[in-house]
Amino acid sequence: MSCKRGILIVVSGPAGSGKGTVLNKVFEKSKDFVYSVSATTRDPRPGEVDGVHYHFITKERFEALIAEGGVAEHTYYCGNYYGTLRTVIEKDLCEGKNVVLEIEVDGAMQIKNKIPDALLILVVPPDFATLEARLRGRGTNTEEDIKNRLERSREELKFFDKYDYVLVNYDNAIDEISDKFISIIEAEKSSTLRNKDFYNKFFNI
Amino acid sequence: MSCKRGILIVVSGPAGSGKGTVLNKVFEKSKDFVYSVSATTRDPRPGEVDGVHYHFITKERFEALIAEGGVAEHTYYCGNYYGTLRTVIEKDLCEGKNVVLEIEVDGAMQIKNKIPDALLILVVPPDFATLEARLRGRGTNTEEDIKNRLERSREELKFFDKYDYVLVNYDNAIDEISDKFISIIEAEKSSTLRNKDFYNKFFNI
Repeated sequence: MSCKRGILIVVSGPAGSGKGTVLNKVFEKSKDFVYSVSATTRDPRPGEVDGVHYHFITKERFEALIAEGGVAEHTYYCGNYYGTLRTVIEKDLCEGKNVVLEIEVDGAMQIKNKIPDALLILVVPPDFATLEARLRGRGTNTEEDIKNRLERSREELKFFDKYDYVLVNYDNAIDEISDKFISIIEAEKSSTLRNKDFYNKFFNI
Repeated sequence: MSCKRGILIVVSGPAGSGKGTVLNKVFEKSKDFVYSVSATTRDPRPGEVDGVHYHFITKERFEALIAEGGVAEHTYYCGNYYGTLRTVIEKDLCEGKNVVLEIEVDGAMQIKNKIPDALLILVVPPDFATLEARLRGRGTNTEEDIKNRLERSREELKFFDKYDYVLVNYDNAIDEISDKFISIIEAEKSSTLRNKDFYNKFFNI
């Protein structure tokens, strides 16, 4: 029983997990996936296009949307709101697209509470040593920066069991990992939890 | 995080679902799957080999195994026991094989209760009309036989939501369906429920 409606997919992972690279490959391989465009109350920067880089809305509008339950997850950072509007994701889901939100653990937990059928995927390196090596390998982070990020990862990964899947992003396996990502979504579409109307449909009730 | 241990897979489906054909294709495509050999108390027929067609054991032994919890599921039919021995599936699971049990709903529910991490897959035709057409298409069943089978299917499919996945076996799509079957198992190996030790492993605790 194949679900016509797309799946809302939340992807998190520590800095150094390579989740962005995995997602880019997924988008390259399949047209069934779209990124969700976030909303923000900050001003557009030169070159930023409304509806492409962000949906730019006023603080008053954002707060009104929060109040009426129209925001799936949000954060407040340096005096501005950033978040995901339900109307934005709903449109793509209705068209059968799988909508990908690349957000941190806190936002993921908000989505899990508000939209129970969202699918949560955690992308991780094979182990902590690899995570550290990848962060150091970038060469752009200070020692303090690296320590902070590792500490943060340790805290974030404590939430791993709130996710549905944990996808290990091995070195040099991007083709395999992106396939696995796509397989997970395909498999989910056959899950009975996502096909509660199966019996009635089958018997045309 | 990839599970070393194999997954116990229970496959059910009404007569006419084509589950046997799907499974044969899966076994042809991947060496990671093995059929579980059932145990029975009936006598071997000419040509039947112990451990290949069945594990032939005495009624006393079968009943002793039931009493000590060594039987994963069983049925009693025409004076003999038929069932699945835990030792048999355990050996293959330990070796990383996915063990497939092709059994009816009643046996599947026994497995679900006794072995919660078993994965239950229900193979179904696209709809009731197709099921009926397939049964009639065989040309070997009497009208009464067909009616009985359809009625039985109707009862069995009421249990669909006790299964984890419902796999629709469309006509002439055996290649696609068998791929989907394999994908489901691959995806499951990344589920957090099957990787409860992830955090400790990741941090080498």
